[in-house]
Amino acid sequence: MKPDKEKMTIILFSGDMDRSIAAFTLATTAASAGTEVSIFFTFWGLNLLKKSLFTLGKSQSILQKIFNIFSNSNLPVSRMNMCGLGPIMMKYLMKKSRTASLNDLMSLAKQLKVKYIACTTSCSILGLSKENLLDSIDEFAGAATYLNEARESKINLFI
Amino acid sequence: MKPDKEKMTIILFSGDMDRSIAAFTLATTAASAGTEVSIFFTFWGLNLLKKSLFTLGKSQSILQKIFNIFSNSNLPVSRMNMCGLGPIMMKYLMKKSRTASLNDLMSLAKQLKVKYIACTTSCSILGLSKENLLDSIDEFAGAATYLNEARESKINLFI
Amino acid sequence: MKPDKEKMTIILFSGDMDRSIAAFTLATTAASAGTEVSIFFTFWGLNLLKKSLFTLGKSQSILQKIFNIFSNSNLPVSRMNMCGLGPIMMKYLMKKSRTASLNDLMSLAKQLKVKYIACTTSCSILGLSKENLLDSIDEFAGAATYLNEARESKINLFI
Repeated sequence: MKPDKEKMTIILFSGDMDRSIAAFTLATTAASAGTEVSIFFTFWGLNLLKKSLFTLGKSQSILQKIFNIFSNSNLPVSRMNMCGLGPIMMKYLMKKSRTASLNDLMSLAKQLKVKYIACTTSCSILGLSKENLLDSIDEFAGAATYLNEARESKINLFI
Repeated sequence: MKPDKEKMTIILFSGDMDRSIAAFTLATTAASAGTEVSIFFTFWGLNLLKKSLFTLGKSQSILQKIFNIFSNSNLPVSRMNMCGLGPIMMKYLMKKSRTASLNDLMSLAKQLKVKYIACTTSCSILGLSKENLLDSIDEFAGAATYLNEARESKINLFI
Repeated sequence: MKPDKEKMTIILFSGDMDRSIAAFTLATTAASAGTEVSIFFTFWGLNLLKKSLFTLGKSQSILQKIFNIFSNSNLPVSRMNMCGLGPIMMKYLMKKSRTASLNDLMSLAKQLKVKYIACTTSCSILGLSKENLLDSIDEFAGAATYLNEARESKINLFI
């Protein structure tokens, strides 16, 4: 057992289902052992934090809306996506082997006080604002904030 | 030169040939300089540890078998896969420039006592058991074991 | 504020536009706060350092030339590439939200003395030599050099 000051950061760049599951498995396992975990959601990773797959901001341009709709339509897997069949198969296999789903892991992460930081630069490129995103976000911040957390952390991963 | 207690961990999530080569190049270079290296094979990374591309477990469901066959058929490259032409070209170019192949690197890794940890959660999703996997695996373990290694390591990478 | 001896390393394996933007945003933010940053360009990451998209080495074999031309033709994005439409949309959205482009970030990185290390193993596989690559490269080196930098760094990322 380690002192509870120990820290870990994860940059969740990918919005792929499989990579997100890996990120949240690591985050919840670490947090349940007393590690302070921060996840910095950037680019496609922000898809995990959208309120609804079709929540579009009023202030979004048409191109931002298109970009958001296309990058949504359920999380793909990084390989063997097969037009959406891959994620369905993976969800089925996870259920069958009684592995926690991504939704379960994300609920657990919040219970364990994993800190969610949404990248402001990515939000502004994609035209996303607070109203489009989940309330579970603890902070909106840029790379400087991430780097401050990472400097104090034992484990830093880019996923 | 560093004391031989220095540690490095790699999470090998990707089963792509190019990313695996990068992981094993780093692992063998570090190990030959006296660093203790652990590779944690998870998700697609487990493809590198399968006994045969068509080894299917007796206990696998049909869906697990399909998933395993599809995710096998030789390791792809992460870009320019071109239906399998990419990996063939890459293998040829590596041979021509006298670069060690992935097989060479994996043999070297074992000689240098690089530790192989197979992720039990991924194994259970994919229906893989010890009998389907190489004997060179040192340990079957979950995220908690990885995190214990990573906490003591100077360098931790997610590949 | 931290002492200026603090270090960070990034292995830039991916040549995707979105991942490269993430890498250079982190690198320039860290460097402007006084951190010594090294970027180790390997495999597809070397595409960012090519003088021209069609600069082919005299000593390259036909296969190396084909591999280089195909892996060039502008940087793709890691998702939603849509035959090149994705990067155009992303560039447009970045311009509209007044975010620095990849070119801007790379210029800034050099002003802030971010160190560029080109992986010699990848260069020899792809048949690339100094004459094909930008003058802004500080060093040509292998994995051992990267590991020496990483051992002394607080933050090490594989992107």
